[in-house]
Amino acid sequence: MAGTEPLRVGLAGLGTVGAGVLRLLAGNGAAIAARAGRPLRVTAVSARDRARDRGSDLSGAAWEADPVALALRPDVDVLVEVIGGTGPALAAVEAALGAGKAVVTANKAMLALHGAALAARADARGAALRWEAAVAGGIPVIKALGEGLPGNRITRVMGVLNGTCNYILTTMEKTGADYADVLADAQRLGYAEADPAVDVGGIDAAHKLALLAALAFGTRVDFAGVAIRGIGEITLADIRRAADMGYRVKLLGVARMNADGLEQRMEPCLVPAGSTLGGLEGVTNAVAIEGDAVGQVTMVGPGAGAGPTASAVIGDLVDIARGNVRPAFGLPAAALARPERSSVGSEAAYYLRLTLRDRPGALAQVATVLGEHDVSIDRMRQYGHRGTEAPVVILTHPTEGRTVSAALAGIAALDVSLADPVALRIEEV
Amino acid sequence: MAGTEPLRVGLAGLGTVGAGVLRLLAGNGAAIAARAGRPLRVTAVSARDRARDRGSDLSGAAWEADPVALALRPDVDVLVEVIGGTGPALAAVEAALGAGKAVVTANKAMLALHGAALAARADARGAALRWEAAVAGGIPVIKALGEGLPGNRITRVMGVLNGTCNYILTTMEKTGADYADVLADAQRLGYAEADPAVDVGGIDAAHKLALLAALAFGTRVDFAGVAIRGIGEITLADIRRAADMGYRVKLLGVARMNADGLEQRMEPCLVPAGSTLGGLEGVTNAVAIEGDAVGQVTMVGPGAGAGPTASAVIGDLVDIARGNVRPAFGLPAAALARPERSSVGSEAAYYLRLTLRDRPGALAQVATVLGEHDVSIDRMRQYGHRGTEAPVVILTHPTEGRTVSAALAGIAALDVSLADPVALRIEEV
Repeated sequence: MAGTEPLRVGLAGLGTVGAGVLRLLAGNGAAIAARAGRPLRVTAVSARDRARDRGSDLSGAAWEADPVALALRPDVDVLVEVIGGTGPALAAVEAALGAGKAVVTANKAMLALHGAALAARADARGAALRWEAAVAGGIPVIKALGEGLPGNRITRVMGVLNGTCNYILTTMEKTGADYADVLADAQRLGYAEADPAVDVGGIDAAHKLALLAALAFGTRVDFAGVAIRGIGEITLADIRRAADMGYRVKLLGVARMNADGLEQRMEPCLVPAGSTLGGLEGVTNAVAIEGDAVGQVTMVGPGAGAGPTASAVIGDLVDIARGNVRPAFGLPAAALARPERSSVGSEAAYYLRLTLRDRPGALAQVATVLGEHDVSIDRMRQYGHRGTEAPVVILTHPTEGRTVSAALAGIAALDVSLADPVALRIEEV
Repeated sequence: MAGTEPLRVGLAGLGTVGAGVLRLLAGNGAAIAARAGRPLRVTAVSARDRARDRGSDLSGAAWEADPVALALRPDVDVLVEVIGGTGPALAAVEAALGAGKAVVTANKAMLALHGAALAARADARGAALRWEAAVAGGIPVIKALGEGLPGNRITRVMGVLNGTCNYILTTMEKTGADYADVLADAQRLGYAEADPAVDVGGIDAAHKLALLAALAFGTRVDFAGVAIRGIGEITLADIRRAADMGYRVKLLGVARMNADGLEQRMEPCLVPAGSTLGGLEGVTNAVAIEGDAVGQVTMVGPGAGAGPTASAVIGDLVDIARGNVRPAFGLPAAALARPERSSVGSEAAYYLRLTLRDRPGALAQVATVLGEHDVSIDRMRQYGHRGTEAPVVILTHPTEGRTVSAALAGIAALDVSLADPVALRIEEV
């Protein structure tokens, strides 16, 4: 158990999350100190605009314009990095770790791109590098996966990791509005990032998936190995037709260790409507972890916001205050395997959305192409025409993704195909 | 970080869970050692029947007939207690802690009754007392609640904590079978305890709730303060009528810190069917934690079984191997408050099941009694008669539990009341 000297925190970034950390320490400070065995004290802060009022008393904390200088201050034991991005944030984190100081960060992009190098730097100096707040906000999933399940060989990790996307998909379903309208609403409400591609394009969620996969499988973070596809091509009709067949559409991250290597996908999938993941509404996040001993454990909660993210930051700080130190990704950085990327990937059933010319024989041509590729049909529904178009949905039996792609290319080349066919994976959760 | 000397484990109990621990260490031992920073080695075991084959090689481990002797062996660093009960198990745990040795236990009954004293004993010798396996099986909820959310003032903890009860309730719903038939099936399948009262009477689940409440609120375990009611009076009709109105019936534990003290209830409740807790099927457990910063986090997974419980035991052992030591209930035992018990309890809406004589004016008499007690009606449905009986269901507006009890006594006294009325709390989750 650590001593009773305060843990001296340097807080880099006073945006939503940084202000949340200050509020939480001010409001619950005594209880936090009791759990930590000693007080947490913010001794210095750094942010772009010193004058802005953040609703917290900063008079006791020194000010540094430069986050690197903040990290190196002698009265800072641990750097909390909630700046974001890979510029000054990365420089400050590198400086802190290089000086043997602990780091707590909410920065998924930085870790997804530089996680392996930062973990090695932390190990070299025996410094803690903690990142609960980087994935799934307030849900303590890094603690659960990184410390709670060490007896297991993890077989699959899944996550609904971007609240904006889930808000858009479930709001489309509830209100019957189109994708573009709901996205615009989300932007007005401040849910979507300034560059929506990071959210709806799946990049933000993929950053988080790559981090979960590294921790789950003991591998170096391989963000470039994530197959990413956003939700932009999901239509209201897809959502309705999936519901017809007992599914909901989620931007789902899946990481699996296959015989030929690591499979990481972030893409819109169909999941059973009655499952915990299928039942998620609004901005809620969820992570499901599967291990050979435990079976499946699913955690559900708020994936973003000042309070939840600050809660995660404080959790890491209390661990550091108590001396609970473990390697950033569960194993020493030198022991993290460089993952092979699975080339084939796992089999799954697929939802195929086709737009066919409404004329005799069109379906027969499609069925012929699928048969030629050994893609077998589980269910098929043709919906009411729109003019000369006949919307058709096919659910396949389980097959390889590359087989589906090849079959889709064949269907797209048919002259009865009026729009590019779309395939969505059906993930059994 | 701890050294590379093996952590020497004394395993007391070789039933389902003990055998599961041995299997997991045999199968995943190398990976577990990598995560722990050193090997875990079972140096000695104790069980009632030495001759029985448990499917694991025990030739490397010494045998002790007496678990206390096992705990005191010089080649045992940590005692894993998976005997159960409060006889030899308690004696062994006391001996180990008294000798300054760490203890990992799955024994919820022992902790519910003796948790405060054992925590004090552990603190006195600086020994770890860990019990992830005692609550919700493989779900790492003690880690999440005890270490992952220290920034929060916890406001409510809820749990579906007995798999047998949830199996019975969801199987009644699915198959239309009666309570007694499904219970008999569960007993044949080995789901229900030998003494079913421990399961269906709510005692097992109440043990776990008392432990969660102590950890959540920083209080001494107060099992005697849990208001317990089992599922024996739930009928198929209750389940169907709750479903009609958008609810499912769950044996739900709820612990809340009210202005006048701690409220702990374990009772059948109605919860919204679309919620994560409402969606639970079969033997699955779930725990929902609410904090002022994080909002609500819910964890779902297997609540029992050899693999999940062994997974939890190994999690605790790895923490001990790594030197991650914290007080058994989050705060030093001496700092745990002795909780006042909330006398009024929180308000809730209620489901009332009435059986009335089918004659004019019967409902008016009921409404009059409810009005006299200031219980206001939200919804009412009368179902088809059975002979001269008219089944009636009423959902009330939020009110105090004691008010509902008083009103129910008034209704029971009416001569139009043909069976004792039953009230089930509707918990908003």
